[in-house]
Amino acid sequence: MSRPPYPFSAIVCQEEMLRALLIAAVDGTVGGVLVLGDRGTGKSTAVRALAALLPAMKAVKDCRFGCDPADAAALCAECRGRSRLQAVEVPVPVVDLPLGATEDRVAGALDIERALAEGVKAFEPGLLARAHRGFLYIDEVNLLEDHLVDLLLDVAASGENLVEREGISIRHPARFVLVGSGNPEEGELRPQLLDRFGLCVEIRTPGDIGARVEVIRRRDAYDRDPAGFCAAWEDAQARLRRRIIAARRRLPDVAVPDAALERAASLCIALGTDGLRGELTLIRAARAHAALEGRRSVGDAEIRAVATAALRHRLRRNVLDETSSTTRVERALAELFGP
Amino acid sequence: MSRPPYPFSAIVCQEEMLRALLIAAVDGTVGGVLVLGDRGTGKSTAVRALAALLPAMKAVKDCRFGCDPADAAALCAECRGRSRLQAVEVPVPVVDLPLGATEDRVAGALDIERALAEGVKAFEPGLLARAHRGFLYIDEVNLLEDHLVDLLLDVAASGENLVEREGISIRHPARFVLVGSGNPEEGELRPQLLDRFGLCVEIRTPGDIGARVEVIRRRDAYDRDPAGFCAAWEDAQARLRRRIIAARRRLPDVAVPDAALERAASLCIALGTDGLRGELTLIRAARAHAALEGRRSVGDAEIRAVATAALRHRLRRNVLDETSSTTRVERALAELFGP
Amino acid sequence: MSRPPYPFSAIVCQEEMLRALLIAAVDGTVGGVLVLGDRGTGKSTAVRALAALLPAMKAVKDCRFGCDPADAAALCAECRGRSRLQAVEVPVPVVDLPLGATEDRVAGALDIERALAEGVKAFEPGLLARAHRGFLYIDEVNLLEDHLVDLLLDVAASGENLVEREGISIRHPARFVLVGSGNPEEGELRPQLLDRFGLCVEIRTPGDIGARVEVIRRRDAYDRDPAGFCAAWEDAQARLRRRIIAARRRLPDVAVPDAALERAASLCIALGTDGLRGELTLIRAARAHAALEGRRSVGDAEIRAVATAALRHRLRRNVLDETSSTTRVERALAELFGP
Amino acid sequence: MSRPPYPFSAIVCQEEMLRALLIAAVDGTVGGVLVLGDRGTGKSTAVRALAALLPAMKAVKDCRFGCDPADAAALCAECRGRSRLQAVEVPVPVVDLPLGATEDRVAGALDIERALAEGVKAFEPGLLARAHRGFLYIDEVNLLEDHLVDLLLDVAASGENLVEREGISIRHPARFVLVGSGNPEEGELRPQLLDRFGLCVEIRTPGDIGARVEVIRRRDAYDRDPAGFCAAWEDAQARLRRRIIAARRRLPDVAVPDAALERAASLCIALGTDGLRGELTLIRAARAHAALEGRRSVGDAEIRAVATAALRHRLRRNVLDETSSTTRVERALAELFGP
Amino acid sequence: MSRPPYPFSAIVCQEEMLRALLIAAVDGTVGGVLVLGDRGTGKSTAVRALAALLPAMKAVKDCRFGCDPADAAALCAECRGRSRLQAVEVPVPVVDLPLGATEDRVAGALDIERALAEGVKAFEPGLLARAHRGFLYIDEVNLLEDHLVDLLLDVAASGENLVEREGISIRHPARFVLVGSGNPEEGELRPQLLDRFGLCVEIRTPGDIGARVEVIRRRDAYDRDPAGFCAAWEDAQARLRRRIIAARRRLPDVAVPDAALERAASLCIALGTDGLRGELTLIRAARAHAALEGRRSVGDAEIRAVATAALRHRLRRNVLDETSSTTRVERALAELFGP
Amino acid sequence: MSRPPYPFSAIVCQEEMLRALLIAAVDGTVGGVLVLGDRGTGKSTAVRALAALLPAMKAVKDCRFGCDPADAAALCAECRGRSRLQAVEVPVPVVDLPLGATEDRVAGALDIERALAEGVKAFEPGLLARAHRGFLYIDEVNLLEDHLVDLLLDVAASGENLVEREGISIRHPARFVLVGSGNPEEGELRPQLLDRFGLCVEIRTPGDIGARVEVIRRRDAYDRDPAGFCAAWEDAQARLRRRIIAARRRLPDVAVPDAALERAASLCIALGTDGLRGELTLIRAARAHAALEGRRSVGDAEIRAVATAALRHRLRRNVLDETSSTTRVERALAELFGP
Repeated sequence: MSRPPYPFSAIVCQEEMLRALLIAAVDGTVGGVLVLGDRGTGKSTAVRALAALLPAMKAVKDCRFGCDPADAAALCAECRGRSRLQAVEVPVPVVDLPLGATEDRVAGALDIERALAEGVKAFEPGLLARAHRGFLYIDEVNLLEDHLVDLLLDVAASGENLVEREGISIRHPARFVLVGSGNPEEGELRPQLLDRFGLCVEIRTPGDIGARVEVIRRRDAYDRDPAGFCAAWEDAQARLRRRIIAARRRLPDVAVPDAALERAASLCIALGTDGLRGELTLIRAARAHAALEGRRSVGDAEIRAVATAALRHRLRRNVLDETSSTTRVERALAELFGP
Repeated sequence: MSRPPYPFSAIVCQEEMLRALLIAAVDGTVGGVLVLGDRGTGKSTAVRALAALLPAMKAVKDCRFGCDPADAAALCAECRGRSRLQAVEVPVPVVDLPLGATEDRVAGALDIERALAEGVKAFEPGLLARAHRGFLYIDEVNLLEDHLVDLLLDVAASGENLVEREGISIRHPARFVLVGSGNPEEGELRPQLLDRFGLCVEIRTPGDIGARVEVIRRRDAYDRDPAGFCAAWEDAQARLRRRIIAARRRLPDVAVPDAALERAASLCIALGTDGLRGELTLIRAARAHAALEGRRSVGDAEIRAVATAALRHRLRRNVLDETSSTTRVERALAELFGP
Repeated sequence: MSRPPYPFSAIVCQEEMLRALLIAAVDGTVGGVLVLGDRGTGKSTAVRALAALLPAMKAVKDCRFGCDPADAAALCAECRGRSRLQAVEVPVPVVDLPLGATEDRVAGALDIERALAEGVKAFEPGLLARAHRGFLYIDEVNLLEDHLVDLLLDVAASGENLVEREGISIRHPARFVLVGSGNPEEGELRPQLLDRFGLCVEIRTPGDIGARVEVIRRRDAYDRDPAGFCAAWEDAQARLRRRIIAARRRLPDVAVPDAALERAASLCIALGTDGLRGELTLIRAARAHAALEGRRSVGDAEIRAVATAALRHRLRRNVLDETSSTTRVERALAELFGP
Repeated sequence: MSRPPYPFSAIVCQEEMLRALLIAAVDGTVGGVLVLGDRGTGKSTAVRALAALLPAMKAVKDCRFGCDPADAAALCAECRGRSRLQAVEVPVPVVDLPLGATEDRVAGALDIERALAEGVKAFEPGLLARAHRGFLYIDEVNLLEDHLVDLLLDVAASGENLVEREGISIRHPARFVLVGSGNPEEGELRPQLLDRFGLCVEIRTPGDIGARVEVIRRRDAYDRDPAGFCAAWEDAQARLRRRIIAARRRLPDVAVPDAALERAASLCIALGTDGLRGELTLIRAARAHAALEGRRSVGDAEIRAVATAALRHRLRRNVLDETSSTTRVERALAELFGP
Repeated sequence: MSRPPYPFSAIVCQEEMLRALLIAAVDGTVGGVLVLGDRGTGKSTAVRALAALLPAMKAVKDCRFGCDPADAAALCAECRGRSRLQAVEVPVPVVDLPLGATEDRVAGALDIERALAEGVKAFEPGLLARAHRGFLYIDEVNLLEDHLVDLLLDVAASGENLVEREGISIRHPARFVLVGSGNPEEGELRPQLLDRFGLCVEIRTPGDIGARVEVIRRRDAYDRDPAGFCAAWEDAQARLRRRIIAARRRLPDVAVPDAALERAASLCIALGTDGLRGELTLIRAARAHAALEGRRSVGDAEIRAVATAALRHRLRRNVLDETSSTTRVERALAELFGP
Repeated sequence: MSRPPYPFSAIVCQEEMLRALLIAAVDGTVGGVLVLGDRGTGKSTAVRALAALLPAMKAVKDCRFGCDPADAAALCAECRGRSRLQAVEVPVPVVDLPLGATEDRVAGALDIERALAEGVKAFEPGLLARAHRGFLYIDEVNLLEDHLVDLLLDVAASGENLVEREGISIRHPARFVLVGSGNPEEGELRPQLLDRFGLCVEIRTPGDIGARVEVIRRRDAYDRDPAGFCAAWEDAQARLRRRIIAARRRLPDVAVPDAALERAASLCIALGTDGLRGELTLIRAARAHAALEGRRSVGDAEIRAVATAALRHRLRRNVLDETSSTTRVERALAELFGP
């Protein structure tokens, strides 16, 4: 019933967000992307656009959990029981998680009485199952109830969804890129939540007339004739799609020398980040960025390119230094790496 | 059982509200009208009056969702299954959304057990289905529960209502003009809410004795003899109805030159509106206004005519400048366009 | 089981309340009476007394909604389906709405399953149906839950009660005079609520020994021998009943000249009332008062007689002028009409 | 299973409470007794003792509501349907209303489905029915939920309990003396609540060693041998019982001259009590007191004897005069009646 | 499944608590023991130990309420219906009341439908029934919900549990010693609650190294070999058990001369305790203490020995005198009885 | 479906936490471990690693509660009913308790109707049963609802889980090491909670570049090839496993001389800890530590090694001394034991 999504390659400005989304598309283990900033700057448009850009994926035919036929280790219980895994092509899913969703709707509903009689079929998959191998998008994530946030981040961390009711447990793979957006002026984010998103980017309304006119012009053209507009951008879309596929293939071979690890540690010590999650994410994001840029090893340039997104949300508030987190990361980068 | 609504063309004063409602009647994609101001100034009267003024629309016979037989792309699942779409004329709906309505009543209720057995018939359409292709009116929208506001604005944005329960999803078209009213002195509006209404108008009790006497006289005459009063205004109603029909027909051909886009961007930059939704609405409202006025292109005059309604609710509060939003928009208009 | 109510004509003092109740008895469209003031001053006694004073009304036999057989336009669905409307005489109802009543009890309860099978019979009428064509009395209305207040005032405004549940809607006429009482020292009233009552009167404990002795003496006499006391007042009751009947008959013919409309507008502008509801009520109350006094036209005297009750609850609070609302209305009256 | 109650005539000290309870036993229409004061001073003991003291009453055999066979006007629906009212003697009931009681338990529970089929039998009488013609005792009444307080006082005022559910209404007589106790230091009482109790007495721990030793000695003797203790007091009990019976018989003939009414009004005006309920109660209590004392007319002595209990809880708080209510009533009495 | 409880006679220090528990074991009508003080000082150990120390009691075989076959006046309805009461020996029960217990679990659950069909069998006894004739222990009683506290103290006062639902009432004996513990630093106790415990003792962590080493040594020995440790203390246990049995037998014959009553009254007046409950408890506790000590009459020594525990929780807070309650009682004792 | 856990012996830094976990593995009666400190420092990794390190345990085949066939005294009701206990080897369980878990899920769910018919089979074991003889891990324990905390600590203390509903009680052994983690900056812990954890350790992000690089390098190596990484550490794991087994065997023979008891008491008195739980834990932890270190007796060295973990969470807050608890314990140790 709905029209084709806006082309990812036609998005104007917002480079930091686009880069973070591409990194997450190349290496889903960086742990989700949090987008902070103004309303009306195209956050949900970008997520839908990215999903539409990605190459279709192969899934087991009739599998309710979208299992990957090529990943025998991560099949659901039903697929493990199939004599033969027939593959079909399906689009990468983008699932919206509405703020008021119940835990049953998110994690899936288990009918205990039927479960005792029929086993796994008594499980009605939820949004987490739908998002498997794709994107789960939460607008205004700072307003999401805590127990749902915890659930999502746990699943995102473990890669599987475990539903337990009265001694019965159902388990299915659920790996997705979590994308959250929110405006920190309208409700602060819990430190736990901030820390567990891999990357955090900021987005602003463009201040340049030319850019704004271009945004409006493209949007108006798209709104009036979605099909024609998409056709005009098909070539740019194909180029970007090929670049993502190449980066995914290259990723396991990108080296992370000890010097890079030490650079990352020095930067995190200088910034005083709690724990080591920031450091690990920084290294992973730099590796994915290197893969996207066609490089074979992580060096200072790759660390710099992703450090702000990987660390800005992990700084302790310093009451004597009201400088923004972004500025503090950039200052530390300049001190360590030179201007 | 009830009497005919008060004629739209007999409404005295309140030009800004009347213009915004007419624009929404011509181009529903401007995104709803928010009316702020005093009690007892005829807001709900005006909405009911507008609906009664609009020409009857054609709908598929027996369709529970009021599908448009001429719009094959937006049919509900039931209509898509019909061998032939028989058209009947129905009035444009005006639906009141009471503050205490449940989500089931608004979005529709899905009987899971029947759904598994009978499919879409197990869906009991809600107020959103009733409002399709018409108006949804919420008095005291600033007191509406957040989750309902979010639901409404999401539906208003996507043009369809999606009800999901335990893995079953029902989807039907739901395009309507959302009209909210409220008194900001009695409860502030969330910035998200403000931003997502297309136009925002202010309404005041008239201060002129003549105007007030005329309002009371007409109202008293209407109350005492509704039928006679409406008959006296039938000609004015017919004229206005023809003007709306003409504007709708003319709308796709109204040009928006680059100069107008730049004017809109400059104005929004000067006012510091967040995001680009204001700019997009400004252009759309100016185009609809041009169509109502019989012009072929959007120029400064059309932008000025709608800028205050399109932007006044998108300004950041400036703690150093307590000037009202209206005054700030008007000042920016004067600076950019001359006095 | 209970004794006859206290006679309206035996009530001592409290002229402003008595006048407002009589006006509401003559023209129910003035929109209800709010009584503010001390406990123990006979508010509920007065409402019950008024209902007992009014002439019995004719209702359709066996109609659960008390339909008026003479008003074909306002029949309930059941009566519209009757081949013949047999009339019976019934007393004017007075219904108490307790503070803790559920919405189902007030508006009526709809049994969805039966409704699908049996239609309107599945509707169990509520207090609103019982109050049709009579009085609905709410003590301590300032403590009533907001959603009930909204429901009541909506019904009072539209004259019908609409119950909607899951796509089924039942509608029946519900026209009544809403009488609320409260002590503003024990919980402020929402401005929306205040504004939507037609008249607002204040009531005080009498300060005069003679009056008090008379109140106690009459009350004691009534408590000891209700039947004998009522018999002694039957003549006075009959006179007052005839006066109400005459005023109702005379009402449509009472003229409201333009000069009166201008007077009303000037007064409202001077007082700065929001919206025009105050003005409309002022005119209607003055007309009903003229009818009660046997006059053929509304003049200054009639406006003055009801202005305080019609306007005192519609003034904005003026932080620089702590004068009571009553004094402010009286001062404005003196300035406009002379002392 | 439980032992005989402590004899009323063996209670030491607390004369004001004892007098108020006796007045309520003589004329139940004075409207209940509120006892304020220290814990552990025998409030509930006194109420139980009074009930045990009162002569057994006649009730209709098998009536679930305890109807009085001699009061044809106040029979329940079931008794009205009986061909013959057979009388049995039953003790005067004392019912405890626990703070956490549900409304169903207090007012009675109505089984709608059975009610449609079987009528009044579907009603399960509650505590109000059990208390009919006796006492309803609420300890810590200041902690009782508001909706229960309202219910109780309404029933106490009207003398009948009306249960309405979904259009079905059950009505039965429920006349009782409401006795509440509380410690105002532990939660203030709503002015509405205070005002609607007829009499309000204060109770203090005795400060006199002899009195205290006597209380403890009697209590210890009673606790160790309830039957023997009660036997020793049987004569005193019989004398007091006869005095109550005589006072009830004498009550209708006690005169209240105009001078007494004026005295009461002057006193209430001097104290500035809101409304006239205080005045009415003062007169009634003075009349019952006169009956107990064997007098034929109410004079100054009778008014003085009950004025403090009738009025102390009806004074407005005077922020400039922190004198206790009791002192203020006594001062006004001295000014009006002489020292 | 669990090991034998720690022997009461092996408890080190905490004499005041031990004495209060023994008094309650001798005369359950003193009304429960409240233990205030530090965590980890063995409060629950002491309660369990006391119950294990007490001689087994005789109960009616198969009685769900643990009825005493020797107390015909306090049998449950079922036992009253038995043709013959067969006795069995059962241990004195100790029941823990967890903070989150529901009222149904505490008081027992009544299945209305079955009750109508089968009577008392439809009652599922709760913790109160289980505690009959033993101990009910509530840790952190200051955190218990008010309605449960009220329920418990009412039952403790009346000696029977009355469950009423919809007109059906079940009643069974429930006499137990209520033992509560709490730390007043972590939540104040309601004065009503404090006042209704009979005795209140304070408990502190011992400050003496020798005592502490002894506590730890005994506890460690017990933890490593519960059976061996208990065997070593069996003689001491038997001696203490015989002392309790003797005191119970002696109790009814202990005299309370008037001089003792006057002493108690003077002490309570000097301390300004509210009501007379403190005085009554003081006398009873002194009598039980005399019985334990083998004396035939209550004198100053017995009053002094228990006065602090009986009165310290009944003093009004004196804002000018921040001296602890314990000190204030001791000072008053010294003034009255000499040092 | 999931990969092998990270090897315990490959954990870098965090010696205090590792020692406390090993002590709890040797003597589960020390009462759980609370880990306070920064996010992202590997707390849950360490708990999972420890469980994987421990030797498999023998359990009764098909027992739903994981009973130990060698411990006849602690069998569940079902095992007690088995004619023969067949043993199988099972891994030591690690159970996560999610913050939002219901009490039914934690303690197990009892189906009353089936229980009446089928007895213990109607019990659906919960997380407590699953954790028997292993670890129960609660992340952010400071955010856990109080009633769950109470439940857990009670079960941890008694070693059995007792589920009671409506008179039916199910009981099964549930002995586990409770491990909680939390950040005290994000929500204070109740003193009761703190006091009842046996050991409390603090954990910090390492500040040394070399250590951090090593952590990241190991983690990255593990993430990329879990199986290969674990193989490389198998020898170290086996050594540590043998050490734990030896310590468990040696534990009952480790002596605690009186001098050690006095040392512990002096330390606790110097620190002013409430109650004696700290002292008992200190002795037990020192004994387990001695067993791990291969010593035969507890001396000053063993007390010092565990004193901070055993006592830091039991100090009263001293408003005049804002020194951290850790420093206060260390200072007291230095004063008593010398530097």
